[in-house]
Amino acid sequence: MTSVGADDTGLLAPGWADSPAASATGDAAFLQALLDAEAALTRAQAALGLAPAEAAAAVTEAADATRFDVRSLAGRARGGGNPVIPLVADLTKAVGEEYGPYVHRGATSQDIMDTATMLVAVRTLDLVLADLGRTERALARLASDHRDTAMPGRTLTQHAVPTTFGLKAAGWRSLVLDARDRISAVRDSLPAQLGGAAGTLAAFTVYGAQDTQALTAAYAREIALREPLLPWHTLRTPIADLAGCLAFAAGALGKAAADVLVLGRTEIAEVTEGSGGGSSAMPHKANPMRSTLIAAAARRAPQLAATLYGSLAAEDERPAGAWHAEWEPLRDLLRVVGGAARDAAELAEGLRVDADTMREHLGLTHGLIVSERLSAELAPVLGRARAKALLTDLARRTHTEGRPLAELLADEPELKDVNVHELADPARYTGSAGVLTDRSLERR
Amino acid sequence: MTSVGADDTGLLAPGWADSPAASATGDAAFLQALLDAEAALTRAQAALGLAPAEAAAAVTEAADATRFDVRSLAGRARGGGNPVIPLVADLTKAVGEEYGPYVHRGATSQDIMDTATMLVAVRTLDLVLADLGRTERALARLASDHRDTAMPGRTLTQHAVPTTFGLKAAGWRSLVLDARDRISAVRDSLPAQLGGAAGTLAAFTVYGAQDTQALTAAYAREIALREPLLPWHTLRTPIADLAGCLAFAAGALGKAAADVLVLGRTEIAEVTEGSGGGSSAMPHKANPMRSTLIAAAARRAPQLAATLYGSLAAEDERPAGAWHAEWEPLRDLLRVVGGAARDAAELAEGLRVDADTMREHLGLTHGLIVSERLSAELAPVLGRARAKALLTDLARRTHTEGRPLAELLADEPELKDVNVHELADPARYTGSAGVLTDRSLERR
Amino acid sequence: MTSVGADDTGLLAPGWADSPAASATGDAAFLQALLDAEAALTRAQAALGLAPAEAAAAVTEAADATRFDVRSLAGRARGGGNPVIPLVADLTKAVGEEYGPYVHRGATSQDIMDTATMLVAVRTLDLVLADLGRTERALARLASDHRDTAMPGRTLTQHAVPTTFGLKAAGWRSLVLDARDRISAVRDSLPAQLGGAAGTLAAFTVYGAQDTQALTAAYAREIALREPLLPWHTLRTPIADLAGCLAFAAGALGKAAADVLVLGRTEIAEVTEGSGGGSSAMPHKANPMRSTLIAAAARRAPQLAATLYGSLAAEDERPAGAWHAEWEPLRDLLRVVGGAARDAAELAEGLRVDADTMREHLGLTHGLIVSERLSAELAPVLGRARAKALLTDLARRTHTEGRPLAELLADEPELKDVNVHELADPARYTGSAGVLTDRSLERR
Amino acid sequence: MTSVGADDTGLLAPGWADSPAASATGDAAFLQALLDAEAALTRAQAALGLAPAEAAAAVTEAADATRFDVRSLAGRARGGGNPVIPLVADLTKAVGEEYGPYVHRGATSQDIMDTATMLVAVRTLDLVLADLGRTERALARLASDHRDTAMPGRTLTQHAVPTTFGLKAAGWRSLVLDARDRISAVRDSLPAQLGGAAGTLAAFTVYGAQDTQALTAAYAREIALREPLLPWHTLRTPIADLAGCLAFAAGALGKAAADVLVLGRTEIAEVTEGSGGGSSAMPHKANPMRSTLIAAAARRAPQLAATLYGSLAAEDERPAGAWHAEWEPLRDLLRVVGGAARDAAELAEGLRVDADTMREHLGLTHGLIVSERLSAELAPVLGRARAKALLTDLARRTHTEGRPLAELLADEPELKDVNVHELADPARYTGSAGVLTDRSLERR
Repeated sequence: MTSVGADDTGLLAPGWADSPAASATGDAAFLQALLDAEAALTRAQAALGLAPAEAAAAVTEAADATRFDVRSLAGRARGGGNPVIPLVADLTKAVGEEYGPYVHRGATSQDIMDTATMLVAVRTLDLVLADLGRTERALARLASDHRDTAMPGRTLTQHAVPTTFGLKAAGWRSLVLDARDRISAVRDSLPAQLGGAAGTLAAFTVYGAQDTQALTAAYAREIALREPLLPWHTLRTPIADLAGCLAFAAGALGKAAADVLVLGRTEIAEVTEGSGGGSSAMPHKANPMRSTLIAAAARRAPQLAATLYGSLAAEDERPAGAWHAEWEPLRDLLRVVGGAARDAAELAEGLRVDADTMREHLGLTHGLIVSERLSAELAPVLGRARAKALLTDLARRTHTEGRPLAELLADEPELKDVNVHELADPARYTGSAGVLTDRSLERR
Repeated sequence: MTSVGADDTGLLAPGWADSPAASATGDAAFLQALLDAEAALTRAQAALGLAPAEAAAAVTEAADATRFDVRSLAGRARGGGNPVIPLVADLTKAVGEEYGPYVHRGATSQDIMDTATMLVAVRTLDLVLADLGRTERALARLASDHRDTAMPGRTLTQHAVPTTFGLKAAGWRSLVLDARDRISAVRDSLPAQLGGAAGTLAAFTVYGAQDTQALTAAYAREIALREPLLPWHTLRTPIADLAGCLAFAAGALGKAAADVLVLGRTEIAEVTEGSGGGSSAMPHKANPMRSTLIAAAARRAPQLAATLYGSLAAEDERPAGAWHAEWEPLRDLLRVVGGAARDAAELAEGLRVDADTMREHLGLTHGLIVSERLSAELAPVLGRARAKALLTDLARRTHTEGRPLAELLADEPELKDVNVHELADPARYTGSAGVLTDRSLERR
Repeated sequence: MTSVGADDTGLLAPGWADSPAASATGDAAFLQALLDAEAALTRAQAALGLAPAEAAAAVTEAADATRFDVRSLAGRARGGGNPVIPLVADLTKAVGEEYGPYVHRGATSQDIMDTATMLVAVRTLDLVLADLGRTERALARLASDHRDTAMPGRTLTQHAVPTTFGLKAAGWRSLVLDARDRISAVRDSLPAQLGGAAGTLAAFTVYGAQDTQALTAAYAREIALREPLLPWHTLRTPIADLAGCLAFAAGALGKAAADVLVLGRTEIAEVTEGSGGGSSAMPHKANPMRSTLIAAAARRAPQLAATLYGSLAAEDERPAGAWHAEWEPLRDLLRVVGGAARDAAELAEGLRVDADTMREHLGLTHGLIVSERLSAELAPVLGRARAKALLTDLARRTHTEGRPLAELLADEPELKDVNVHELADPARYTGSAGVLTDRSLERR
Repeated sequence: MTSVGADDTGLLAPGWADSPAASATGDAAFLQALLDAEAALTRAQAALGLAPAEAAAAVTEAADATRFDVRSLAGRARGGGNPVIPLVADLTKAVGEEYGPYVHRGATSQDIMDTATMLVAVRTLDLVLADLGRTERALARLASDHRDTAMPGRTLTQHAVPTTFGLKAAGWRSLVLDARDRISAVRDSLPAQLGGAAGTLAAFTVYGAQDTQALTAAYAREIALREPLLPWHTLRTPIADLAGCLAFAAGALGKAAADVLVLGRTEIAEVTEGSGGGSSAMPHKANPMRSTLIAAAARRAPQLAATLYGSLAAEDERPAGAWHAEWEPLRDLLRVVGGAARDAAELAEGLRVDADTMREHLGLTHGLIVSERLSAELAPVLGRARAKALLTDLARRTHTEGRPLAELLADEPELKDVNVHELADPARYTGSAGVLTDRSLERR
């Protein structure tokens, strides 16, 4: 097989290549969506008596992406700056002389581009939502299974106080649910676009539409998108909403990935990805590839979203640049989030948790991980000043003598009536972690 | 008065200096919010019997920003990387020996920082919402007043087909309403933060809290923020939601500004800002300062939001950098949007619309602005091919002869039965602009 | 021809599809560059006696992208997170049993990925530089031809004082030269990458390299890249330098595009693109497609660069995410700048300048465009205060009476000895525009 | 002392508050730079005989920021959209009736704003360069001291092969030198700005300047900036160059910070910051505050730079928004990099390296960290296939039996003639790390 001159197939994109989102956002998928939009428009006109039913059938029949040459369309898109212009020519020809005139009747290129983009978005978001669903279910299991698995809580890279793995997984899940809710709301709000050359729907009236609202409604129905209140050629709320929910999702998954990357370090090894990525040179390595690729997605998404937010300030009835700057970043965003959601599902479903290592690590600070508790508990017993002085001294001695704090405390005659082993047991200082985990799992 | 060594007062920020958002987001406002958070925490503990009522009263009384030295706090913030650490020291001292120990009891710095940030956000968003309200009301008036003011619709910088100024203003307003809805929803969702050192609320249990959920609820009530489902130290949904709604608002206002900048150009002059900015050297100039400053805000907001989205991927129970990278960009975003909303209100309220110039400009293309309509209307009369040939020929002649298309059409014997003057009147080719305007104004 | 399941061919990318940069950055080009890097490495080892000459020949012979299945590689890249791992397997097999072991010997995937990326960058930048060369030559002609073509200078959208089109074109050119200089310097600095698994070159020493510096030098020579001082797996200066010069180039071309978009507006029409983009519905439209597409590129490039700058902070000897986040944004940046440079060359070569319209527009403010001059010139004649009062009065009257300022000035008895027609002639108030243009054209 | 209504003092900015860059970029510093620019302009005019020497002296004398009310200027800046307009009024008044007319003569606000911005940049960059110098010297010492300190090389979070701390520090230093070189080159290139209302210098000719190039040269000399080839009101190369070198510097320092954050984790503890940040609740914690704050800077800088790159596409002779969008992001970028450079110097000077722990960690994989070497070395001895099978088996056994690889190897009769202890000693598998370190330290 030859590959010279071949097009992009995802060689640089292990994060999303071969994911469901990849094929849902490829050129072929976009081409089909453009054709779907054209066909829906003719059907909507037919439904209102503005075109013969046969024309609607003919356009619908012809609107099959496999019959069009996507590479040729891409090349010819350059002249007018978008692929709809050559596509309308090819589709009109494919439909034939009789019904060809009903293709794209009254519409502007942007009506079709924007509607197709919404279609691609809806189709991709459904895949993303499915993978987020898998992810949250797997995380719910992890949270539940490890409700009481104590581990070091880490702040600013240092052991702080104990927490549980259950609470951590519950936190990851709550972000996934937040992403799901935001994506789901945006998905259900995405509108069809119909406005004609400058958003007044004027050409449709020339072609006989007396009630353009009815036409827009019929079009939205045919294409299964929301009916817009106004044509949104330069009112880009749907694009910005997509930017926001996708950037959020990438970051939300990025949080879990960031944690897995930390917890899976050779020195920490509290978790491992179910199956690691290999290395040609170093047979022992099992790299955390899924979290790596999710982390890469989380680094890219915010800037892709920024470009889309920047396109809101679109002058006139069609801006010279702001609109064109949306297409690839929005597709990229759908893809990187789609890939990340796939990876997150696999990551969550395959994650191996080493509860013993977690517990062991609670001792790494020789018990200082509970110093917060000891400060609070010993102050009433010894007085604030004495408690502080004692703890400072003992903290120093844990280092110099390498002995656990509990042992040193037990030696203190002042504390003979205090159950220091209980006080100094990190596993008994997880506060409300369990209750919080339970409560958060009630969220569906 | 001396200014050397003085701090930032907005010298580089004509876009937000002196706006309501400026004082709502200044260091003094943040300091007060930090103190409000501390006081609310002690009151919440008192409400649950975990602290004496006198302690709550003492902390609340002491929590007055005017009594603290913000500059000294800023300097001392460096040691621990946030201003809460020195503030707790100063506040504890201010409260005095007896009740001082109840200051910040069980809390971590991030509890106070995050809660204060939410307070500042709520207070600023309320100001933004008020200015968006003024803006949308003024735009509703403009849309209504100019429902039938025809003007050129412009796409890719060129006259396309006619539209109306009413529809344009209605579109601006719909974006403002979208911004209002998104900001309002986020505003009402912003939660208090309470988690303790690593999000388990453990220290509070040591200090006697049996039901930490009740404590969190009481705290949220005292500070008038939402009760969170989980501590969100590293579940940064509220920050990302703020990023999204603020970036959206900046872009939404930026759309109107972009249009005003085009329509107010010397050669176009269809609108002017109520009062222009002066120039020292050129007495004739009246610069569109408000739209300029809004445009500048719209250029900055997306990247500020990107930084905030980037901080979602926060490792551990408190990340080393991602959290700290949020503070200034979020404040900047609140400010630039706050300033832009103020400018938008003034812009919308003061905008002068020159309907005569708009109408005049409909003739700039010698009638070609209605060529879309003529193509559609003449095809049934003359046949598609003949209609196209004729229009192509006449389009050429409008240029070479400088005569309007309507005149040339009237000379054509083939068209003697057609009312060419009506067909070629741009003001009669505004499609559904009026109806769309009416409908969009029903949205409240 | 079927297109379902087809890969990206640029359907959403009229800005760069079919440009030289498109094929220089496609998956096939990357694949060839990866193979070139592998072959160069074996040749370098052969040159130092670390591999048989036959092995070098065999690998070089086999390193032909047309013999590999890029789609399969893309799919298999996912396992290890990069395409080199499966490529090494396929290439080893293709080379055969005898010399296969010399493929990739001692190297790590990143050595090959990074080197290939530099190769792709050099090859693409050469194309960009050629198009920037065309662009600057065409702009030099425009600047020279229009050295004395007076036109309104516009600030904050309003006519300010006169300038010349020559100076404007000279300014565009100076930005193009700045871009050329920055790209050229970066292009010549791009290094080969060789470090082995963690940047110590250790495996090469095991395979017999006594002087790894000599090996790196030989490798750089074979691949025609600079020899690096240190392996740069996580010292990403070359990537950041590319980000900077490419973001600069996009913005530099974006400045000219922004001006053409303004000057080509229907109401202004001082310039037009040589051949405009068509519209299916509006036969009269000639859209400024090249400047539109350049403007779109200028909107995207900064955020792509931001992602690359963000990847500088790469932990360890190979970061988990930061590296992977570079690949697609860097390719995108090369492409959008490559496309924009192609469009800029065509734009500059085809631009039509309407000097008469420019001159006419100098009168749009009824002469107020020279008010700065009059203030300065009349003050010594009339006294500052009187001069100011007079001009304010006359400015008002130009509006109310619609008469040019020169005429009103000529009526003033106080000014009978002043050559008001000369003073008020905008074409004589272009200051040093001509000299500046001349001087800037001396820069090569 | 009261703080309500006080201005920003850095409360949210522990990363740069109290740094040298903070006061070099404050409103007072900007105000002084604006005044310096005005005074230099009058002096330049006096030098050419266009103004009396007394006027130059008077303006220079009056141009003292301590005499102006920065807050009032900030408030009045809003009218015209920049602070120069009210400043000229105040300065003219301060200079007095006789020489007041020589203030700002012939200039436009942007001449003064841009020149002042360059002054502030030069002054801040000098401070940054000083701190980068301290940083690189400290890193050179670390690299030299630890030339042979072996430690695990980590890729994708996992131990890969050994490296040395010397090479790591040398890498950090090479990035600091790259940053220094880029900043230094940009610093020396920053030009004065002089163009008048629309970049033609026309007003200066009216005021008598026959050779505006000489005026520009004199002005640049007076203000100690480079003489520009063209006025650069809308040719924003200097701003973009600043964006690039500052974003680079932030990322370059961010790399070292990222490594310190990893290496300083509780479980790794191979390095610690000289003095850690405290925690009120957890007395044992020593947080890596400097690297945390540098990491935060590295997260913000790319997006600030993106906004600046975005402003390159500036329409007309002064853009409506793109210019105004530069001011605060550029200041922020100077500040965050200034703060990060200060923190980097302290970090590098104070870093404590625990060579014993590093060496210990080389054993964490039971010797698998040298599996790359063993694969290569044993293949000739045992044959490729047998070597691979053996290593795979032993790798498994290191885990199950918890015995080091060297021990297991020593038990293999096939290898009795091989010095397995040397082969399996990680400290002897650091390749060219030492040589690379030496070579890189020769760079000055």
